[in-house]
Amino acid sequence: MLTADKKILVVGLGLIGGSYAEALTRRGFDVAALTRSAESIDFALEKGIISRGFTEPCEDALSDRDIVIFCLYPRVLTAWIEKNQKYIRDGAVLTDVTGVKGAVVYKVQHLLRPSLEFVGAHPMAGREVSGVRNADCSIFRGANYIVTPTAENTPRAVELVEDLGRLLGFSRISVLSPEKHDEMIAFLSQLTHCLAVSLMTCRDVEHLSAYTGDSFRDLTRIARINDEMWSELFLLNREELLRQMDVFSSQMGILREAVASGDAETLKRLMRLSTERRALFDK
Amino acid sequence: MLTADKKILVVGLGLIGGSYAEALTRRGFDVAALTRSAESIDFALEKGIISRGFTEPCEDALSDRDIVIFCLYPRVLTAWIEKNQKYIRDGAVLTDVTGVKGAVVYKVQHLLRPSLEFVGAHPMAGREVSGVRNADCSIFRGANYIVTPTAENTPRAVELVEDLGRLLGFSRISVLSPEKHDEMIAFLSQLTHCLAVSLMTCRDVEHLSAYTGDSFRDLTRIARINDEMWSELFLLNREELLRQMDVFSSQMGILREAVASGDAETLKRLMRLSTERRALFDK
Repeated sequence: MLTADKKILVVGLGLIGGSYAEALTRRGFDVAALTRSAESIDFALEKGIISRGFTEPCEDALSDRDIVIFCLYPRVLTAWIEKNQKYIRDGAVLTDVTGVKGAVVYKVQHLLRPSLEFVGAHPMAGREVSGVRNADCSIFRGANYIVTPTAENTPRAVELVEDLGRLLGFSRISVLSPEKHDEMIAFLSQLTHCLAVSLMTCRDVEHLSAYTGDSFRDLTRIARINDEMWSELFLLNREELLRQMDVFSSQMGILREAVASGDAETLKRLMRLSTERRALFDK
Repeated sequence: MLTADKKILVVGLGLIGGSYAEALTRRGFDVAALTRSAESIDFALEKGIISRGFTEPCEDALSDRDIVIFCLYPRVLTAWIEKNQKYIRDGAVLTDVTGVKGAVVYKVQHLLRPSLEFVGAHPMAGREVSGVRNADCSIFRGANYIVTPTAENTPRAVELVEDLGRLLGFSRISVLSPEKHDEMIAFLSQLTHCLAVSLMTCRDVEHLSAYTGDSFRDLTRIARINDEMWSELFLLNREELLRQMDVFSSQMGILREAVASGDAETLKRLMRLSTERRALFDK
């Protein structure tokens, strides 16, 4: 059980880290933050969403923390663990927020000393803006939170990380293996970002903004994309993403063939299927 | 100039026809409607958005109308013109709302007798629901309206159809050739619907609704699609749609290759370009 006497450290105080800190402070937890920018810490202290802040990993920041939440890019996370796990107290539970799991979870678990436990989690929430100044824990409402335990994890720690998702305000908490998570995220999130980026870059569009309807705007909203983070996420989930891109392209090929051959029946059949399926996704 | 003494007939009283009728009646015009469903007419009369209704083309419905607005599917429109233009008074201006222009405008102009003039128009507005009961002229606010004149048209009639767009409440009125319109619409609207339909039909998704974020929902909102109308629109704009599908697929191929070869620099460059371009499309 995640009780309010647990001391929490958020490592990486950006949009997601800041939103976690805000939600957990409101819930009565003592939340400290460790992040490189002193300005981010000053802002978070002023806003009252953290109790203390640190710009460098140290004994003082970590030795009394029961839970450490990493809100870092995947590669930075594993490097951090290697270098700084020595400061974390025995028995602490560690979790993260990264958007790929297979390439992160096993590596972190492998690196950790036996007295620490890492349970991966993926909060499926975000905004097109970044930084702690845009932190807003209302982004978790209505959103999904996925916990990705492995055979290494204990039921106690998994339960604690699930509790964390509930306390943050997520509407649905799910448990998936890292592999299932990555397959699902390759299709639902990474492929959709590939489509948006391809649509936005495949031809000159500057002169077209006068003519766009909502459909083009909807499809390209996520074409505003953090290139550092997403290129890393794509490449860490490469095989699965390629598989999903190929599944999609093959379906586009079927649709193209129906258009090319004037096959109205196939077009209508696909449209009816998509209409029917889309109804399942209405909130 | 489109003055309020002009008498208007809306042919086809669905979502768009009904919304036109509502907007124009509010603007003080006398608006009659011709549509197959007596129930639709009863509803529109009761709601006060038309002054008279007819279920069959006839002298009575058409002989006093200065402007006739066709809110019909493309193929139905050309068949209607062939059979019923005899009822329309000399000097009337005709326009439409169809989503493809090259395959419609020239054909209608060719069919018309010399004393009638047709100016194509495309109101880029819609909803995921249909029928006059869902009519709502607020859908035109913030939306684009495109007039597609040809060499056959007179400045007076083109101006009148532009005025119509303004009176309906569209935020932006543009003039494009039918060919330019069709190229633009193939990319901005038809291709986006192809992407949404392909994404929704390329694999089983029933079990995935628990995990979707907003990105998947945004990209597939338009996967709920009127199969009769859109299959017709796709096939009437076949060459241009195929061209745009190929442009898109080739760009997806570049992105795929970058993922496959671990080329982070190309991924980041495409993401930065898409981010920059997308900013142009924010309302």
